[in-house]
Amino acid sequence: MHPDSLRQLLDQVATGTTTVADAQQRLSTLPYEDLGFAKIDHHRSLRTGLPEVVFAAGKTPAQTAAILQSIAATGVPALATRASREAFEETAKLVPDATYHELARCITIGSAPRKVGKIAVMCAGTSDLPVAEEAAITAECFGVEVDRITDVGVAGLHRLLAQLPRIRTANAIVVCAGMEGALTSVVAGLVEVPVIAVPTSVGYGTSFGGITALLGMLNSCSPLVTVVNIDNGFGAAFNAARIAHLSAEKR
Amino acid sequence: MHPDSLRQLLDQVATGTTTVADAQQRLSTLPYEDLGFAKIDHHRSLRTGLPEVVFAAGKTPAQTAAILQSIAATGVPALATRASREAFEETAKLVPDATYHELARCITIGSAPRKVGKIAVMCAGTSDLPVAEEAAITAECFGVEVDRITDVGVAGLHRLLAQLPRIRTANAIVVCAGMEGALTSVVAGLVEVPVIAVPTSVGYGTSFGGITALLGMLNSCSPLVTVVNIDNGFGAAFNAARIAHLSAEKR
Amino acid sequence: MHPDSLRQLLDQVATGTTTVADAQQRLSTLPYEDLGFAKIDHHRSLRTGLPEVVFAAGKTPAQTAAILQSIAATGVPALATRASREAFEETAKLVPDATYHELARCITIGSAPRKVGKIAVMCAGTSDLPVAEEAAITAECFGVEVDRITDVGVAGLHRLLAQLPRIRTANAIVVCAGMEGALTSVVAGLVEVPVIAVPTSVGYGTSFGGITALLGMLNSCSPLVTVVNIDNGFGAAFNAARIAHLSAEKR
Amino acid sequence: MHPDSLRQLLDQVATGTTTVADAQQRLSTLPYEDLGFAKIDHHRSLRTGLPEVVFAAGKTPAQTAAILQSIAATGVPALATRASREAFEETAKLVPDATYHELARCITIGSAPRKVGKIAVMCAGTSDLPVAEEAAITAECFGVEVDRITDVGVAGLHRLLAQLPRIRTANAIVVCAGMEGALTSVVAGLVEVPVIAVPTSVGYGTSFGGITALLGMLNSCSPLVTVVNIDNGFGAAFNAARIAHLSAEKR
Amino acid sequence: MHPDSLRQLLDQVATGTTTVADAQQRLSTLPYEDLGFAKIDHHRSLRTGLPEVVFAAGKTPAQTAAILQSIAATGVPALATRASREAFEETAKLVPDATYHELARCITIGSAPRKVGKIAVMCAGTSDLPVAEEAAITAECFGVEVDRITDVGVAGLHRLLAQLPRIRTANAIVVCAGMEGALTSVVAGLVEVPVIAVPTSVGYGTSFGGITALLGMLNSCSPLVTVVNIDNGFGAAFNAARIAHLSAEKR
Amino acid sequence: MHPDSLRQLLDQVATGTTTVADAQQRLSTLPYEDLGFAKIDHHRSLRTGLPEVVFAAGKTPAQTAAILQSIAATGVPALATRASREAFEETAKLVPDATYHELARCITIGSAPRKVGKIAVMCAGTSDLPVAEEAAITAECFGVEVDRITDVGVAGLHRLLAQLPRIRTANAIVVCAGMEGALTSVVAGLVEVPVIAVPTSVGYGTSFGGITALLGMLNSCSPLVTVVNIDNGFGAAFNAARIAHLSAEKR
Amino acid sequence: MHPDSLRQLLDQVATGTTTVADAQQRLSTLPYEDLGFAKIDHHRSLRTGLPEVVFAAGKTPAQTAAILQSIAATGVPALATRASREAFEETAKLVPDATYHELARCITIGSAPRKVGKIAVMCAGTSDLPVAEEAAITAECFGVEVDRITDVGVAGLHRLLAQLPRIRTANAIVVCAGMEGALTSVVAGLVEVPVIAVPTSVGYGTSFGGITALLGMLNSCSPLVTVVNIDNGFGAAFNAARIAHLSAEKR
Amino acid sequence: MHPDSLRQLLDQVATGTTTVADAQQRLSTLPYEDLGFAKIDHHRSLRTGLPEVVFAAGKTPAQTAAILQSIAATGVPALATRASREAFEETAKLVPDATYHELARCITIGSAPRKVGKIAVMCAGTSDLPVAEEAAITAECFGVEVDRITDVGVAGLHRLLAQLPRIRTANAIVVCAGMEGALTSVVAGLVEVPVIAVPTSVGYGTSFGGITALLGMLNSCSPLVTVVNIDNGFGAAFNAARIAHLSAEKR
Repeated sequence: MHPDSLRQLLDQVATGTTTVADAQQRLSTLPYEDLGFAKIDHHRSLRTGLPEVVFAAGKTPAQTAAILQSIAATGVPALATRASREAFEETAKLVPDATYHELARCITIGSAPRKVGKIAVMCAGTSDLPVAEEAAITAECFGVEVDRITDVGVAGLHRLLAQLPRIRTANAIVVCAGMEGALTSVVAGLVEVPVIAVPTSVGYGTSFGGITALLGMLNSCSPLVTVVNIDNGFGAAFNAARIAHLSAEKR
Repeated sequence: MHPDSLRQLLDQVATGTTTVADAQQRLSTLPYEDLGFAKIDHHRSLRTGLPEVVFAAGKTPAQTAAILQSIAATGVPALATRASREAFEETAKLVPDATYHELARCITIGSAPRKVGKIAVMCAGTSDLPVAEEAAITAECFGVEVDRITDVGVAGLHRLLAQLPRIRTANAIVVCAGMEGALTSVVAGLVEVPVIAVPTSVGYGTSFGGITALLGMLNSCSPLVTVVNIDNGFGAAFNAARIAHLSAEKR
Repeated sequence: MHPDSLRQLLDQVATGTTTVADAQQRLSTLPYEDLGFAKIDHHRSLRTGLPEVVFAAGKTPAQTAAILQSIAATGVPALATRASREAFEETAKLVPDATYHELARCITIGSAPRKVGKIAVMCAGTSDLPVAEEAAITAECFGVEVDRITDVGVAGLHRLLAQLPRIRTANAIVVCAGMEGALTSVVAGLVEVPVIAVPTSVGYGTSFGGITALLGMLNSCSPLVTVVNIDNGFGAAFNAARIAHLSAEKR
Repeated sequence: MHPDSLRQLLDQVATGTTTVADAQQRLSTLPYEDLGFAKIDHHRSLRTGLPEVVFAAGKTPAQTAAILQSIAATGVPALATRASREAFEETAKLVPDATYHELARCITIGSAPRKVGKIAVMCAGTSDLPVAEEAAITAECFGVEVDRITDVGVAGLHRLLAQLPRIRTANAIVVCAGMEGALTSVVAGLVEVPVIAVPTSVGYGTSFGGITALLGMLNSCSPLVTVVNIDNGFGAAFNAARIAHLSAEKR
Repeated sequence: MHPDSLRQLLDQVATGTTTVADAQQRLSTLPYEDLGFAKIDHHRSLRTGLPEVVFAAGKTPAQTAAILQSIAATGVPALATRASREAFEETAKLVPDATYHELARCITIGSAPRKVGKIAVMCAGTSDLPVAEEAAITAECFGVEVDRITDVGVAGLHRLLAQLPRIRTANAIVVCAGMEGALTSVVAGLVEVPVIAVPTSVGYGTSFGGITALLGMLNSCSPLVTVVNIDNGFGAAFNAARIAHLSAEKR
Repeated sequence: MHPDSLRQLLDQVATGTTTVADAQQRLSTLPYEDLGFAKIDHHRSLRTGLPEVVFAAGKTPAQTAAILQSIAATGVPALATRASREAFEETAKLVPDATYHELARCITIGSAPRKVGKIAVMCAGTSDLPVAEEAAITAECFGVEVDRITDVGVAGLHRLLAQLPRIRTANAIVVCAGMEGALTSVVAGLVEVPVIAVPTSVGYGTSFGGITALLGMLNSCSPLVTVVNIDNGFGAAFNAARIAHLSAEKR
Repeated sequence: MHPDSLRQLLDQVATGTTTVADAQQRLSTLPYEDLGFAKIDHHRSLRTGLPEVVFAAGKTPAQTAAILQSIAATGVPALATRASREAFEETAKLVPDATYHELARCITIGSAPRKVGKIAVMCAGTSDLPVAEEAAITAECFGVEVDRITDVGVAGLHRLLAQLPRIRTANAIVVCAGMEGALTSVVAGLVEVPVIAVPTSVGYGTSFGGITALLGMLNSCSPLVTVVNIDNGFGAAFNAARIAHLSAEKR
Repeated sequence: MHPDSLRQLLDQVATGTTTVADAQQRLSTLPYEDLGFAKIDHHRSLRTGLPEVVFAAGKTPAQTAAILQSIAATGVPALATRASREAFEETAKLVPDATYHELARCITIGSAPRKVGKIAVMCAGTSDLPVAEEAAITAECFGVEVDRITDVGVAGLHRLLAQLPRIRTANAIVVCAGMEGALTSVVAGLVEVPVIAVPTSVGYGTSFGGITALLGMLNSCSPLVTVVNIDNGFGAAFNAARIAHLSAEKR
């Protein structure tokens, strides 16, 4: 219940316009969505200018397009992940300035008003690129500068080490890795900011669609690592962006 | 190689005190620990005043005590996790001001010089307390204020909601939960700061020693959640403390 | 053996129409289907007016249609689950008043004669809808009123809480949830009727096709939860309907 | 907030004893535990006369005893599951009329005031008895008559069939089975009431501590089966008792 | 080395036609296929009149056809399992009297000269039929009479019990079952001959493609059960046929 | 119902000593244990002279002793598997002629009256001996001659091949193997009788307590292999003995 | 940094052409790729004449072709594994002398200049041939003679033993096996050179796509076995070739 | 059959001292252990001077001691792995010059006559030391020089890189690592000799007793890695020693 509405109701009680019984009835059925934390959900994007996010997997192109159109109508930016080209084409009919990011399989409509902070999105091989790119697009859409550092597997350590100066300027790091996922531990041993690890489903045989990478990351010998679900580039970037905002704003 | 040493060597080359061949020889075997990133490892604690950490599981009481003594001798604080009472007693003989935290199974020697920022450490039941306490002691030792919020399982939602005001003042949140781990998603839906989830090995049967909680957390419907290894209260608090420092310092 | 047949046989023995030897022979090969519990199977639907159920997965459209036709010929209602549109089209040729429920992938022919009791069928997201709708169609076909409550994930707790009054009028509750399945525990903590949980195969990566949700539900912190197989909306509704019948009839 | 308190506050607003601003302040911080659903938690046992339940595993004997003492002090019955003899002995010092059920590992203090309805608790072998007995004690404590039917494995089908008349008088059935858990399907094919299956950790090798039984039960060919966690006799009986209450009361 | 060849060689040594050195050389490289047990492999089918078996999965239609042609040329019967219709059509061009068994996905060319003994091949539902039929065709091809007993799931126990007289005339029993596989234990409790269980990949969700049935069978409470790989109707029938031969011949 | 009893009842009906109504009542409650298949269970041992079997794991020494005493009182032989020395000592007090087989952890009281047929019980290493010995004692107790062939691992193929003549005289073969279980396939490729494989829990790391051996056996390239549960020497021998009886009797 | 460059820089310092400060700056940012071990990566192929390897899975035909073209331009041989025919056709347009190995799914461009040493590549069945051929092509491309020994499963031991003389001339052995993988242990028991085992994804049901073979190989009773990932013929041959080079060169 | 014996037999045939029939009889029962490959097994140690190996786990101290005594009596060296102190003490009574290696849990009696080649045995932490030491003792016992390189985890990369010169002088490398096992890939990217990886059971939670490390190693991005069973330091060293011998001898 909006503070103004509550005040108005109490004013009516105070002035006798509303009876105590009526007020009691209305307050006892107080809808939860008016209790403060509801605002987080509905009004967060409007207040912060950050995008609304749509998980397009399992939705028809038409459904995705309709949801994005309704968000766009409110003026807040929008990001749809796991979106097919078909979903984009449906969306583009309704929201002409929608953009499709083929590799990341993301649709974006606008983005956060300004960039605050920087994250690095790292991956070892070309197969990890779609997940890394989902992370990068997410972070950019949420208003963070992104430094994409790719092709830095641990088997060619010198290439990774050569990127250290770039890596160390990030406020948070997203590492996308499949197979054994060892890149995470090596990177986390070289930096002092949180490293969010995304196991990717890249590999074959005993990579088990990302489980091996996930387990490796959960058992990292560096305490700076936290982990998200397999292929969840969005989730990793969402968290990294939040940390980057905090970190960058203080400077 | 310390910058001063390098400069000294080059000076010697410039002045002819050292031949080019000798300098080339010394530089070609340049020890890696002198290459900048080595300082992170050895000198981080001295520079930052943050504790050195010892993972005591799998070490004998005597080994743990000896390592802690050597750290204490350098004047930096120390934290030993998974430490038995026996390990503490051995340590106390060598480092009289060591403290044992029974529930958390931690030994601490000093702590970070001052508290910056605040995290909430939450858990649902008494069985999760040892992991939560490991997190809390870790965060305090690393210089973060800790708000312990316990007995807030999702089956009694009102108790959790009643703690919302406290929860929302934290800069980062650690949620320790066993069984189905649902607390994580509910909490992460109510806040706007990173939530680091620690699956605990609490439960029986199909809780599989924490795997069920881990999987639930990795699949959380809130994007604010990242996850660490089962029972890894230390790792969660280490990351939460870092985020809290960043978040708090800017204010 | 029907009581009348048994009496008739014994009468024949008593009157000498049948020899003892012949009677002994017939009774020693007494077919099991005549032993009382056989009636459950063959005559249950006729006696109760409840539908016969066909699991159409793994049957050809023609097979499904033929089975449904034979049931329809007996005058009892029928429900086919996991039925493709092709199966429906084959059926419609033979049973013109068959109905297809696209989202639920169910074919119904008639339904229980009247509605007794009410269940709530809840789910968190649009991806869970097919399973939830299979549950809802099942319950309606078996003669229970269904309140469909969707889009009530735990990450937006206020939306769920806002539905509490509706939820609390149900005699039993079916909760369909994928990913971490946390909705089950939260709902079961708010009601006092049995909650039957259906893990759905919704999710990716470590959702493992519903295993994570299943494990979460089996480890629910609320004792009111029992669980069925992944995506088994039919089974959950079948049990919920039975409980609702019991519960509602007594009022 | 208790209805009386709310009315009192509104009365004060109506009469001017409390200002609108003060009332607004108090209502905006309305504690969640006063919002209706809180009563479920705190007052359920007092209202219904049903026991409070304590899960004693992972609690010290002293902790269990203290919790049971505090419940006993309110006059409601209490049930502690997974309780060691030591826990009982501690409890008996504080609550003299506590009873220990050795096989079930349960402590009871009083029970529901009267028995309503009947459930059958079935198991196949002597090794399943502890879980079955936990279920039986739970149901009796919650006010349901219990018919214990043991030693009825599917390999000796005639023994099971000989119990059919007893089995069919139950309002709900709990089946505890380890190894392959086939008893569940056979029983559920012979009755018309809900069957709640408890996989037990009985067996060796590929019984995997109850996982095989659990999987068998989840895949039962009878739709009357729902399942709880391995060895969770309490949970199964809790649900069966609720169904029995509903079922029996209407008669 | 054929006994005649060995004798011939030794004769040559004895008569000096072959030098000791030459004989030593030939014997030291004595091909293992000549050492007795080799005959089992190459000459078994010719000696016994039993079919040669080809596992057609993973072979091209042309490869399967060519192998079958070469077997047919020797005059022994042949059985190809997991054979597509395409493989059959290729085979039929080369071996006109080849027969295709659509449901079983088997090609047969001739069969054992006479039927000895009888096995029962049982399954619970229509989905298990392809595996059961692979077993039945295999057994018939190997010269055993087969009694196909289908649609006898444990949820309708009377139907199974009604088949007892037929079941009990078999010399060995093959039970094919998916889902929870409980049929195996029930059948094995009713007979006195070996029961070979074939888990089938029938089911969904936690049936895990036959793993649940496999585990149930391995944990059967009847000691008469042995188990083969998932969907391995051929292997089960191969063993059952051997036992049936032994059992029947003695009568 | 015993045929004589049934005849007697029918005679009474025929002679009017019993009314039709009374006879109908008695027959309608016909106890299942009298329906033919019941005899299998209760009277099998008496009729055949084969032992009754007790699975002593999970039973107290006193329970095991009491069960064995009651069997011994009927005059049939008895076999208790997984029996501790304590169980034996309790038994010996009650049944003086009980024998304990330390390695096999079996108690035997008498055995089948005569030996018919022969099986080979094979294993690769000393660690597999307890399981192999359980199999051997079982088979001997059930009246089969046993040839123990040990220390024949596939890594020393010549030792295995040297035993071929002995192996080939068996009517059935039990192979107990842990680790990779390869012995099964090699043996089954050298014989023409059924091979029953027992995976043992011998090994470490990825032997997973026998799962690796089990999987290897289920995937054996020889079709003569069927499999039982891990460490289930009893079950394998029970089946092998039955086959041996069949096979040997015909000769 | 190339030794010449370093010397040049130091010369400049010695001669005053470069200031100490400038040299210090350049050396402190010393790119890791110049530190000796970098040469391994970039210059290994040029130095040794061994091929560069491209893992074509997950790359588009165009990408694979472009990478191969760039390698071919440097004059070193190239090997692309997991390459589709399409990838080859794209490559052939750019590199006319590229060769496609259909069964192995490999593209080769040139090979090592000469053959040193010999390995045996063994497999049991035709289904394992693609993996075995990937291994064989790899080894040949890397300059090792390959003896392909196929169709030597353990169920027909004599065929395997007949190949012993050939097998024993190899410097290292690659064994590709699916299903139970027993071939590895048998072979390793017959030779004295390292055996590298490749589990293949051949099989069905509980072969679990190669996991069963993998586990069997890891638990081999012969200590001469090491293992690579499922279907990783390339990796096994790469290691075997290296060992063969070492072994052969010394002779 | 020893070549001399064969020649002698053939000589007797040639000279008529033995009849053809007698020779045929002897050759047809030719014991397999005499067929050449038998020598590998029995005479390998005598011929090569390499130790006989005993796996003491699962053997009683007395059994281990007896086996070691019998080996020692032949004069060849012996190595017992997984040996308890008790086993050593029993052994020392029988073989006074036996040595116990506490950390490695190995008993050695003598060793290979001379050291040829060198391997590096590496591990990351103190918890991996027992496995690494088993590897080191094994290699030394088999006549290879061992360079122990410990405390070189990837989180402190500089420490690892500082050991590069030592690492690169090894002929083969054994890497023992628990947790995520990333050390393997990093090391294998820096060297050009075979790397044999030993996953250790070190870790907690999702380390799953070494499975996570095993999976990481099987999925290593470096092709130089092959893997052995969890904690199998012996197996890794056995292979590394063989490679080292080959590699070193050629120089």
